[in-house]
Amino acid sequence: MELGIPVYEGVDLLDVAGPYEMFKWVDEKKGLRTVILSEDGHSVTSGNGLRFEVHATFAATPTLDVLWVPGGAAEIMQNMMLNPESAYLTYLRKVATGAKWICSVCEGALLLARAGLLDGHRATTHWAVVRCLQGFPKIDVDVTNPRFVESGNRLTGGGISSGLDEALKLITLLFDEKTAVAVQQTTQYFPKPPVWGNIPAAPACTIHWQTKKQNSAKGPLTRSRK
Amino acid sequence: MELGIPVYEGVDLLDVAGPYEMFKWVDEKKGLRTVILSEDGHSVTSGNGLRFEVHATFAATPTLDVLWVPGGAAEIMQNMMLNPESAYLTYLRKVATGAKWICSVCEGALLLARAGLLDGHRATTHWAVVRCLQGFPKIDVDVTNPRFVESGNRLTGGGISSGLDEALKLITLLFDEKTAVAVQQTTQYFPKPPVWGNIPAAPACTIHWQTKKQNSAKGPLTRSRK
Repeated sequence: MELGIPVYEGVDLLDVAGPYEMFKWVDEKKGLRTVILSEDGHSVTSGNGLRFEVHATFAATPTLDVLWVPGGAAEIMQNMMLNPESAYLTYLRKVATGAKWICSVCEGALLLARAGLLDGHRATTHWAVVRCLQGFPKIDVDVTNPRFVESGNRLTGGGISSGLDEALKLITLLFDEKTAVAVQQTTQYFPKPPVWGNIPAAPACTIHWQTKKQNSAKGPLTRSRK
Repeated sequence: MELGIPVYEGVDLLDVAGPYEMFKWVDEKKGLRTVILSEDGHSVTSGNGLRFEVHATFAATPTLDVLWVPGGAAEIMQNMMLNPESAYLTYLRKVATGAKWICSVCEGALLLARAGLLDGHRATTHWAVVRCLQGFPKIDVDVTNPRFVESGNRLTGGGISSGLDEALKLITLLFDEKTAVAVQQTTQYFPKPPVWGNIPAAPACTIHWQTKKQNSAKGPLTRSRK
């Protein structure tokens, strides 16, 4: 079984590295192969400045059993969403056709949405871009900021660190609870944050992904997570 | 203020990427600069197969305000611990001299211990190597598997994902709780694992870091996390 994480310049590091770590600790006997992909096979640099290599190109990976789409900051999302026929969004649609599970974490939901892959589904995303996801009328957005939402064969996660909880959920869905508990033990994922604030109210959407021709008029773009 | 994460071949990815993500979201005005270092400045490959670049060499970074030592699997630790005068352990001792905080996550505690930097301190590590850490008689090992232990200017974390909680604690110690809450909000770190197993009892230590000349006789080396 092959799980692919297609990445891009400016991707959020933990959206990739957190779930990747969890998936790679799944008992080898389960046969889960997790690969990180980029369009051309070149390395990418995360939004916070870590440059890493990928395992394969999109062309060399025409099918996936599980698609996992990571997010990134608002200005990155805007660039990724402008052209719905981009190589990235086209690849998402292509592999989604045969995928058993179609997943996103953080703003990755906006990329799935722009590819038309969340229409008719309930979904979540980073709290700071919930109102952007609500810009897609065919998506039923969960506004309670859950760690993840399961809807048919879609699994969408909340912001950044949500990917850890979501990855364990996916492991349960792909295999069983016992397999997920073993990963939880190995990664010692028994979290207990030393601070506990609240999730802020969702701000207005500052990402505008439609060109003027496509009809759009949103405010100036700002980093939406702060 | 400079925080350095010295890495090595086979390092655990999330031990690096989790805390790095948290530190990089600290309000820029606080002046925290987080860098990933390797001895020669070359890229390293994590134990789970992600190759990433580093920001600087050990030589170019002779001092650090905060030292953060990541862990890795048992066989990696054994190699790293065999020679207490290795470039890696020598670097830890060198920067520890002037560091405000000396931290580890996961098996990184064994590296600090082998460098003599946890003597006289209370500490924790990944549950699977607690009995290895107990092989250092001058360290007071917390056997309750906490997320982290603060002792003087040492902060040690439990296994892998503990680094997220520990990073937030360090941010509180370096700055204040408000700064840590802001990072928690941005990373949406309000964890809620969908499964909740138990932490297994600590197995016998299978890492032997002393050469025969130094006197040691431990069992055959196995991966200790599974």
